Amino acid sequence: MSSKPNKEKLKIIPLGGLEQIGMNMTAFEYGDSIVVVDCGLAFPEDDMLGIDFVIPDVTWLVENYSKVKGFVITHGHEDHIGAIPYIFQRLNVPIYTTKLTMTLIEKKLEEHGMLQMIKRKIVKFGQSINLGEFRIEFIKTNHSIQDAAALAIYSPAGIVVHTGDFKVDYTPVFGDMIDLQRFAEIGRKGVLALLCDSTNAERPGFTMSERTVGTAFDRIFAEHREQRLIIATFASNVDRVQQIINSAKKYGRKVCLEGRSMVNVVGVAVELGYIDDSGNTLVDVDQLKNYPPEKVVLITTGSQGESMAALSRMAANIHKKVKIMPGDVIVFSSHPIPGNEKAVSNVINELSEIGAEVVFQDTHVSGHACQEDIKLIYALVKPKYAIPVHGERRHLLAQAQLAQSLGVEKDNVWILHTGDVLEISEEQARIVGKVQNGGILVDGLGVGDVGNIVIRDRQRLAEDGIIIVVMTLEQYSNRLLSGPDLVSRGFVYVRESEDLIEEANRIVTAAVESCLDRGITDWSKIKSDVKDALSEFVWKRTQRRPMILPIIMEASV
Amino acid sequence: MSSKPNKEKLKIIPLGGLEQIGMNMTAFEYGDSIVVVDCGLAFPEDDMLGIDFVIPDVTWLVENYSKVKGFVITHGHEDHIGAIPYIFQRLNVPIYTTKLTMTLIEKKLEEHGMLQMIKRKIVKFGQSINLGEFRIEFIKTNHSIQDAAALAIYSPAGIVVHTGDFKVDYTPVFGDMIDLQRFAEIGRKGVLALLCDSTNAERPGFTMSERTVGTAFDRIFAEHREQRLIIATFASNVDRVQQIINSAKKYGRKVCLEGRSMVNVVGVAVELGYIDDSGNTLVDVDQLKNYPPEKVVLITTGSQGESMAALSRMAANIHKKVKIMPGDVIVFSSHPIPGNEKAVSNVINELSEIGAEVVFQDTHVSGHACQEDIKLIYALVKPKYAIPVHGERRHLLAQAQLAQSLGVEKDNVWILHTGDVLEISEEQARIVGKVQNGGILVDGLGVGDVGNIVIRDRQRLAEDGIIIVVMTLEQYSNRLLSGPDLVSRGFVYVRESEDLIEEANRIVTAAVESCLDRGITDWSKIKSDVKDALSEFVWKRTQRRPMILPIIMEASV
Repeated sequence: MSSKPNKEKLKIIPLGGLEQIGMNMTAFEYGDSIVVVDCGLAFPEDDMLGIDFVIPDVTWLVENYSKVKGFVITHGHEDHIGAIPYIFQRLNVPIYTTKLTMTLIEKKLEEHGMLQMIKRKIVKFGQSINLGEFRIEFIKTNHSIQDAAALAIYSPAGIVVHTGDFKVDYTPVFGDMIDLQRFAEIGRKGVLALLCDSTNAERPGFTMSERTVGTAFDRIFAEHREQRLIIATFASNVDRVQQIINSAKKYGRKVCLEGRSMVNVVGVAVELGYIDDSGNTLVDVDQLKNYPPEKVVLITTGSQGESMAALSRMAANIHKKVKIMPGDVIVFSSHPIPGNEKAVSNVINELSEIGAEVVFQDTHVSGHACQEDIKLIYALVKPKYAIPVHGERRHLLAQAQLAQSLGVEKDNVWILHTGDVLEISEEQARIVGKVQNGGILVDGLGVGDVGNIVIRDRQRLAEDGIIIVVMTLEQYSNRLLSGPDLVSRGFVYVRESEDLIEEANRIVTAAVESCLDRGITDWSKIKSDVKDALSEFVWKRTQRRPMILPIIMEASV
Repeated sequence: MSSKPNKEKLKIIPLGGLEQIGMNMTAFEYGDSIVVVDCGLAFPEDDMLGIDFVIPDVTWLVENYSKVKGFVITHGHEDHIGAIPYIFQRLNVPIYTTKLTMTLIEKKLEEHGMLQMIKRKIVKFGQSINLGEFRIEFIKTNHSIQDAAALAIYSPAGIVVHTGDFKVDYTPVFGDMIDLQRFAEIGRKGVLALLCDSTNAERPGFTMSERTVGTAFDRIFAEHREQRLIIATFASNVDRVQQIINSAKKYGRKVCLEGRSMVNVVGVAVELGYIDDSGNTLVDVDQLKNYPPEKVVLITTGSQGESMAALSRMAANIHKKVKIMPGDVIVFSSHPIPGNEKAVSNVINELSEIGAEVVFQDTHVSGHACQEDIKLIYALVKPKYAIPVHGERRHLLAQAQLAQSLGVEKDNVWILHTGDVLEISEEQARIVGKVQNGGILVDGLGVGDVGNIVIRDRQRLAEDGIIIVVMTLEQYSNRLLSGPDLVSRGFVYVRESEDLIEEANRIVTAAVESCLDRGITDWSKIKSDVKDALSEFVWKRTQRRPMILPIIMEASV
């Protein structure tokens, strides 16, 4: 800890994770020290056509590279670690996190050939690390993945508590319950600000224990002794997988994992001792044939209806190794994430059509704290300032209400926007600036090469397709050597719309000839005349607005 | 009724409405008579890019034109009447339905300039119409639009009951409750088959009365006396609007309608006397300025987050006449239809950001029968055969279970596919054939000119854009006169990817020159070489698969 006089202020700068689900990243700055919490990606919005995912704009961090002491990661979900391979190509600083989280990060770095270049340190719960002016303590929490941590961020200006994603589970499947005592102790010391998970801040009551799902699995196993069971869930929910293994052991079934991420994550968890398969229930998919269906349970990805996931491929009858049979019981151990409802429903319809029985009840609990749990954290931490994080606007606002109901003064609740620089001290908090921020689109190997213009073009192309008008003009005389020809894609089925296309051709030819007759040599004028004439004609005839792209070539003869 | 000996069989032929929500249409054939129930459209699936809606393929009806005696429409929702202006361009036969339904159909026909050409007859509940070998009786039901009817279809082969979309509402807001006595009477006579609404067949219990929503509105009006109220709901739910008017009258507010369809449908309802505004609460949007906000309630479209609807425009601050203010209370009197959750959530976030309060509770009930209501209908009608309709596969299967639990023999439950020809009599039922069927895509003015190929192109364009390669070859010598030039849209932002584009240009030029050097004159060979070289390069460098479109022009010099 620095001993220089406390005239610097603490700054809190969210670089993502507000106003959206995903892309979690928050910077803390004090003097010449910056630490960053989390490095997540976001999945694309519906209108970001062709985009694989979105990562935060870290220009401000790069500009302040020398101050950045390290990244501290709360847990191993994609919305908290997924941007690491991209961000760390520009920022090579150490990563600090818990064991399972680090192992998942290392898998990622390895895939990108970056494992050797990044300094990493595993931190235990209760342990602290010093990063410049900051000391960061890792506090045990519960979540839908193991090894999730809250952080106590000690700075000369005061203590900030960041919950990460969390729930309160008094009876977790593996490991300890959330360290409520430590939250209380730190609260006693006096906490300047609490950054608390808002995901479920609209939901009243308490979040159920993961263990309740185990009871539901037992019941399902007991009720379907003569049928094959296929259970879809999130690959990263290791405790969920453990509970299925427990039920399988109890009811004498073998467990087979399907889906690449399921095999990967569970493999890591078994290796690290986070999953107990002492009953040797796990078998490889190729061994399935050695067991009758009623002695088998498959755990598969695809609980969100993702088109390429294992369950969706089974439902569509294009899975190479597993064929759904009438009488199979499919359990969705999940809740559709908003936006995925229809995809999930489509998979259910396909499964129903084959004759499988679909079960949707009681086999999922949330990994996020509901209102009463959030209140508990406020009651223990008693922060001066509340800064709701992790959630859409509506969720942040719901937490703001909770914070006020627990005694945080209205003026001390800060609903921030991404990029806001909140300067904060015992005396006051205020927004003192804005840093560059935003979402960088990742499409294939390209990071940031697809921006608004490209996305708008894709939206236009998606809506009504494209008509290309090509022609060749003689270089000097501007004489028409060839064309104009029309080629379309995604507009109409040309063979069945010959009249339309022929007429469009006449319209375009007339527009070009009119330009040339008038001695117009300005290509942009010719192009815009063609565009106007053709779009007017197409709109009148079809009420569609395909992209119209005139291309003029120049030839010297 | 015909007196000829009963050797013909009754055939039931669904032309839509199974395996999907929407596009409801079922044909009944006996001898040389066909009657068709409903003529609905479906909204496009997510992957039907640019499509406005989908209508049933009626080729089979057109082929049997002379037999088609008429269309009988159960109620005025788009998924039951929306295809009429398109289908009736090919099939000009009479339409029979109830008053409100007919008025809504007439509005449609008028817009399409077809009102004069179609024969129409309004039918009252309890009344029957004779259509060839069939007699059709209209039976009063309840639904989320007024004047919904079930049909008793009398044929020489027996009676078929078709519920249409329905719920059981003992205390409807307007008009009578569902005519359960008539269902019972017809059941007593002996019913061959029941076609029953499956939408809510997975939901246990009873569907609540529309009137319960009125109580919720009263509570909301009482709790927010100092704030402006904006209530979003379905334009066609006339009873919902009535209840808002009732609460407004009670609490001394004026009611203003926003959104084109809201203004249209409510206008029709007031005109027909289906809405009572004896308190003169309704005012025009331009009069709003004469009342303080707390004396006003707006009823608006956009409860599904539709981007062009009034509420979405208000939330985005682009509505011309209504500006959301902090403190406004926005009530969603609706439940998101599967697939719309995210859009609704986005609107809520925008409203929250402005400082409006969003209320989502207790102000919606379903218009469809839940399990216990469906059981009641089976108990009254006691059909020999059950043919679940209206719903996705999972819903049809859920009703099949209900039917069996109510005593219909398993072999007598028929889950049909669109196009199936089910021949049915007291002795037996069996599928005897399949008629042409499917969904015809409507895009702008085009009906059916966008098919699989065009949609696949749009999907490809949406995903990664297009690269166009143009060149001009001399007609006889095959000499390259101009190009090859590359133009891309929706691929990368060209100005920031100059290296990539330049290199792509070199790759293409090399491919073309190699062809010409080898004396290749076959254009398709040149095109495929260009395509292969460029797509390999682009994939390697970007892992994207844009559409690649080589265009060769021919010029004589």
